[in-house]
Amino acid sequence: MVDEIYPVRWEDGKVVMIDQTLLPAEHKEKSTGSCNEVAEWIETMVVRGAPAIGVAAAYGMALAANDLRDKSRDDFDKGLLKARDRLARTRPTAVNLFWVLNRINELIEINPHVNPNEMADKVLTEAEAIRDEDLKMCMTIGKYGAELLPDEGGVLTHCNAGALATAGYGTAVGVLRAAWEMGKKIHVYSDETRPRLQGACLTCWELDRMKIPFTMITDSMAGHFMQKGNIRLAVTGADRVAANGDSANKIGTYTVAILCKEHGLPFYIAAPFSTIDFDCPDGSCIPIEERDREEVLCIIPGGDTYDHINVANPGFDVTPHKYITAIITDRGVAYPPFSESLEKLREIP
Amino acid sequence: MVDEIYPVRWEDGKVVMIDQTLLPAEHKEKSTGSCNEVAEWIETMVVRGAPAIGVAAAYGMALAANDLRDKSRDDFDKGLLKARDRLARTRPTAVNLFWVLNRINELIEINPHVNPNEMADKVLTEAEAIRDEDLKMCMTIGKYGAELLPDEGGVLTHCNAGALATAGYGTAVGVLRAAWEMGKKIHVYSDETRPRLQGACLTCWELDRMKIPFTMITDSMAGHFMQKGNIRLAVTGADRVAANGDSANKIGTYTVAILCKEHGLPFYIAAPFSTIDFDCPDGSCIPIEERDREEVLCIIPGGDTYDHINVANPGFDVTPHKYITAIITDRGVAYPPFSESLEKLREIP
Repeated sequence: MVDEIYPVRWEDGKVVMIDQTLLPAEHKEKSTGSCNEVAEWIETMVVRGAPAIGVAAAYGMALAANDLRDKSRDDFDKGLLKARDRLARTRPTAVNLFWVLNRINELIEINPHVNPNEMADKVLTEAEAIRDEDLKMCMTIGKYGAELLPDEGGVLTHCNAGALATAGYGTAVGVLRAAWEMGKKIHVYSDETRPRLQGACLTCWELDRMKIPFTMITDSMAGHFMQKGNIRLAVTGADRVAANGDSANKIGTYTVAILCKEHGLPFYIAAPFSTIDFDCPDGSCIPIEERDREEVLCIIPGGDTYDHINVANPGFDVTPHKYITAIITDRGVAYPPFSESLEKLREIP
Repeated sequence: MVDEIYPVRWEDGKVVMIDQTLLPAEHKEKSTGSCNEVAEWIETMVVRGAPAIGVAAAYGMALAANDLRDKSRDDFDKGLLKARDRLARTRPTAVNLFWVLNRINELIEINPHVNPNEMADKVLTEAEAIRDEDLKMCMTIGKYGAELLPDEGGVLTHCNAGALATAGYGTAVGVLRAAWEMGKKIHVYSDETRPRLQGACLTCWELDRMKIPFTMITDSMAGHFMQKGNIRLAVTGADRVAANGDSANKIGTYTVAILCKEHGLPFYIAAPFSTIDFDCPDGSCIPIEERDREEVLCIIPGGDTYDHINVANPGFDVTPHKYITAIITDRGVAYPPFSESLEKLREIP
């Protein structure tokens, strides 16, 4: 039995999160009743991963609504608008965040005559629904994805698209888990994923808990292990998928996809359908977050003497659709041409 | 004027090295009169980089010879054999090390009747010649390589093939330096080069001293900057080049070469001619050193809780010749087919 991981949950009027910045050294939760603090925790990556950020933002809205139960409806609406703006400013690349905020916004708009006390209940119910749906979506993605994996062999993943990045279960790691639980004898290669090391700190921690065999490698080793024949495919999550299939994910994913192409290996994206941004025709309109240079420098011994040098830190890159074998969603698996197959999944009621 | 960097030098009967494990935080030298200590310093990467290891090994032999001046010739020979074996066990991938040890061995063999005192002088003279030749070779490589660089634009390098990796001046970084000194407006992208971070700690430190404009990136970012058009070519060193052009270099070099191919960019190797191992028909016979897992784990926060997990740490990978645009040596530039062009360079007296 797997000891389930739920990175974000609601308990007694508060949001409880696993502090992912402490893993793997410490497995600790922290809780807050403040929407602002939720926003700060998203920014400082106490919680990260596109779907988990979405769930955290939904609960953040529920906290903001909670604080406005005694106000006038006008003040409630203004307060929630402010909360939404604050949360929207946290991370620009993941589309789930905006999808969640819009969904709660719509709920407010279609209930203009409900009083703030009842609205706060409604927002919480919606947040709980978003969380439950995400968990269910992940399990469905796992089921679809597991079918695509070979009966045995090495599978590469990059960054963390596991339980910690979602409401639970995970997307790319959910696929690995489902395959493993089906009896497929996979061996995972987990890129450490510089600069933030989410692969090393989070994916390896999750795989270890689930007792799925794995090897930690640096990002620069994946090509070598493909050349040696140890890796048979790669599967990663996505933070935003454009209508044509171009996919933004953690920096380094594009390189993984190119390595797969060069070695004739499949490269899969696993993501909830809500990750697909139909308003975004292709990857060129996905904003790429430039993060703090300290994330790169902090592990360099003597990096504090490098104040004056240029350090780049794009948090994500865009993998053009031509490198993607299939996109595994909770509505099914989309194959190229993605502009057609994703549109078809969209029509599923 | 550039403040020249000489990582290994001989001074008053001792070997003096810049302690590269302290850079960029501290620029400090340490000295030793013991060949064993030189071997340890090669193992612990006080000195690293194939040509610099060769120079260090040559001086290590000179130290061993120094200690045997008063012995019988038989004991001298036995002592030097022991020193050679010790030095040969330090790092298996770089061919320069073995080339240097063989060269000193030959010197001993062709002088069977010279007394140990004179032999020790001969060994030191040979070591000094190896050092001087390496420095001259690097400057020649720089001159040949600079011609291949565009008048402006981004150039990627991986690991450190700079002054610190050689007797001075550098191979791949020597090419960048020569181009910059010719007035070419290049901008270097320096991969940090996990796990040991030689790019971040050494190449960036060198580029900074030389005031060549550069940006530090993680290994996972190179693809992204090629996709954006910021990088126009890549140049790296090599630890061993097979007769067919297959080149072993720091782990991650193979990925850089594939990224270049996919983006239609040239990928150059810059290395002294002595790096070419004609006894090695192709990359499959180059031994790849597996290094300590702690090198990977030591920067992972909480990595000490990972005692039981698998961590891979191949120090090098092999880039097949088909990905290499040209090999820049001190005897000239070799183009494909390398089995012919390298052989032709070999015939140059």
